[in-house]
Amino acid sequence: MIAIAAFAMTGVLAVSSKGIDLFTACVMGTITAIGGGTVRDLILGVPVFWAVELNYIWVSLAASLAAFFAKPLLDRKHLFSLMLYLDAFGASLFAIQASNKVWDLQFGLPIAPVILGVLTAIGGGLIRDVLAGHQTLLMNRDLYAIPILLGCTIYVASLALFPEHRSISAIACISCIFGLRATVIHWGLTVPHWLITKPKHD
Amino acid sequence: MIAIAAFAMTGVLAVSSKGIDLFTACVMGTITAIGGGTVRDLILGVPVFWAVELNYIWVSLAASLAAFFAKPLLDRKHLFSLMLYLDAFGASLFAIQASNKVWDLQFGLPIAPVILGVLTAIGGGLIRDVLAGHQTLLMNRDLYAIPILLGCTIYVASLALFPEHRSISAIACISCIFGLRATVIHWGLTVPHWLITKPKHD
Amino acid sequence: MIAIAAFAMTGVLAVSSKGIDLFTACVMGTITAIGGGTVRDLILGVPVFWAVELNYIWVSLAASLAAFFAKPLLDRKHLFSLMLYLDAFGASLFAIQASNKVWDLQFGLPIAPVILGVLTAIGGGLIRDVLAGHQTLLMNRDLYAIPILLGCTIYVASLALFPEHRSISAIACISCIFGLRATVIHWGLTVPHWLITKPKHD
Repeated sequence: MIAIAAFAMTGVLAVSSKGIDLFTACVMGTITAIGGGTVRDLILGVPVFWAVELNYIWVSLAASLAAFFAKPLLDRKHLFSLMLYLDAFGASLFAIQASNKVWDLQFGLPIAPVILGVLTAIGGGLIRDVLAGHQTLLMNRDLYAIPILLGCTIYVASLALFPEHRSISAIACISCIFGLRATVIHWGLTVPHWLITKPKHD
Repeated sequence: MIAIAAFAMTGVLAVSSKGIDLFTACVMGTITAIGGGTVRDLILGVPVFWAVELNYIWVSLAASLAAFFAKPLLDRKHLFSLMLYLDAFGASLFAIQASNKVWDLQFGLPIAPVILGVLTAIGGGLIRDVLAGHQTLLMNRDLYAIPILLGCTIYVASLALFPEHRSISAIACISCIFGLRATVIHWGLTVPHWLITKPKHD
Repeated sequence: MIAIAAFAMTGVLAVSSKGIDLFTACVMGTITAIGGGTVRDLILGVPVFWAVELNYIWVSLAASLAAFFAKPLLDRKHLFSLMLYLDAFGASLFAIQASNKVWDLQFGLPIAPVILGVLTAIGGGLIRDVLAGHQTLLMNRDLYAIPILLGCTIYVASLALFPEHRSISAIACISCIFGLRATVIHWGLTVPHWLITKPKHD
């Protein structure tokens, strides 16, 4: 729930610099919070999670409203980086939870849990950026998705190898993703140059 | 059916200023007309409506073709505003119909019927704008989605309170959305400044 | 499988001119390769094809990796046009295969097999372009989708008229799409001016 709220709030903040109204804020916040999980559930062929447990929607709507009105406050530097850390925590929680759900459904093992874990964590943000006309996180050099990919891969490997220690693995992988993201946020790391294709100059 | 046709035609007109060919016109018109309902049906987990009743596709293809060839005619001011009113009527009909469908399926009451009603009405246009590289209606200050949101909310409230007067509520809410949209179109209203976050100037 | 690999490779190449990292290359390649089929399966309401047969994902990941590392090689003119022909072959194979699948499911005959055939062939590329912030192929004047539309229409017509010669029809239509695309690629054809709406100049 805290993760959903943090996602919705960072979603609103990400688009608010363009000048948005209250309705758009709620839509963008909610899409950021539940978009990734919705696409995951569609691909899995299970009922979407927010129709089963409506509190997810209420929380994301409330968080979007709060972010809209508290925006001047959240623009301060300290609170904004708190949001970034909350968002990192939310992303890691979401990703591992999703991998877990896909694993339990025995869906496309071993690779689908990893893919859908990453998709759940970044999907909502991707849809938001596309609707807002922003550059998506896939095209910039922020290290956002790679820690999540690593964490989900390790989690799925540990589920396969040590199925009896599931909760320990989950906590370890969530911490691992969060730790990596926190490092990236704290030092402002980006993808090193030598890992990137050279843009064409012509 | 008239609503589908109006949606398809405004969809074609919305992208035709960029210079499109016949195929793109049909794709864009059809997506505008049936895109929102398709996403709704996927989330509901029911068969998509246009596969059950193929006439929806035929009508939207025919309307797209008509709009493509009649474009010089439709560019005239009077006919174009007629289209806008037809589109407003289509949107209100679609939204209430969708809320109704979701309500009957007992899916995620009470909030899902509202969300999916709005989604059905604006989803097709969103997909079209994203594929055409336009700014989506969420990011401009047109009052498009808010009347629909109001109408769906009132409709769902009245379904809960007066389940025996369903058709009266439906007609009242469709008129209400259409009336609001018509007011917006007629006087060219936009979201007032004080409801919008300030764009950053830096 | 070759088609999947060709799709993934052209997908990576299409976005690599902007400067991407290894992770984005894999995501973009895989989305291009399996995105269209995923949307088709969601609309059909059947399990997504890559969850049933995981090799599709492995092949597209491997091809994406190969394209990322072999990029300097593939930028050479001859190899790049080889890729374009492979992509054309992949698109025609995908489209007819998809029409076939939809036909067998008796889903929305006779128009849904045509629509979903085209969607399968171009959907992955559309999602990639939207995520990469590129202009989608619907808005440029390349003749990409129209040969596929023609081929699928002829295939569905022949399924209806000569159900006993299914494999002959399939091979004929695949060759037909491929031949048209090869002609387009070879002579650099575009949509003729008189088929396009005039862009507004104001």
